[in-house]
Amino acid sequence: MIIKNIDQVPLQDVNMEGAKDVKVRVLFGPADNAPTFAMRVFELAPGGHTPFHTHPFEHEAMLLDGDIAVVTEEGDRQLKQGDVILMPPDEKHQFKNLSATEGARFMCLVPIAYQK
Amino acid sequence: MIIKNIDQVPLQDVNMEGAKDVKVRVLFGPADNAPTFAMRVFELAPGGHTPFHTHPFEHEAMLLDGDIAVVTEEGDRQLKQGDVILMPPDEKHQFKNLSATEGARFMCLVPIAYQK
Repeated sequence: MIIKNIDQVPLQDVNMEGAKDVKVRVLFGPADNAPTFAMRVFELAPGGHTPFHTHPFEHEAMLLDGDIAVVTEEGDRQLKQGDVILMPPDEKHQFKNLSATEGARFMCLVPIAYQK
Repeated sequence: MIIKNIDQVPLQDVNMEGAKDVKVRVLFGPADNAPTFAMRVFELAPGGHTPFHTHPFEHEAMLLDGDIAVVTEEGDRQLKQGDVILMPPDEKHQFKNLSATEGARFMCLVPIAYQK
């Protein structure tokens, strides 16, 4: 068994095109021999966002804290505490911190093959 | 995209042998066409626990609230806020609510093939 505390996992820059002020902690990934899926936490600085992009795999995500909207081609959906999200493969999406002053965090899981 | 709030997902009894006062909400599973892995939340009543058991697939889990210990053959590990757990396949384990008065919850993900 591996137990980690989120705050102890290194925070890495996300340098993808279209990302702004995003960092990630890879909680469980290939380095932990996670067999099927990877668990990550993304941190968005005030006004920060992930790219508005698409990819051939799904996300399963959960709001941890802060004021986040999920943007899709159907519009924006603001998240509330206790919300979980299934973003299917090939659906364009973005996670956006709506606050100009506070950070925000969400957990996001992906199939292990897509976690570097 | 599917967004659900944890509290709106039906709470089902867990009737596995060795389980005591456990319920589950299947947040994302086969009914949602989750492709690779399933997301569930388990609720343990005061003194409740999952079976002390093993299976050929992993868990990735996170404490949501309450006072939970993970029991393995190496002993008990009490969880604290922000803790995440990777339980590898074939390692015997149990999640146990240490409180005699308060409920406790943890999120737990498994490969989709193992979610009914």
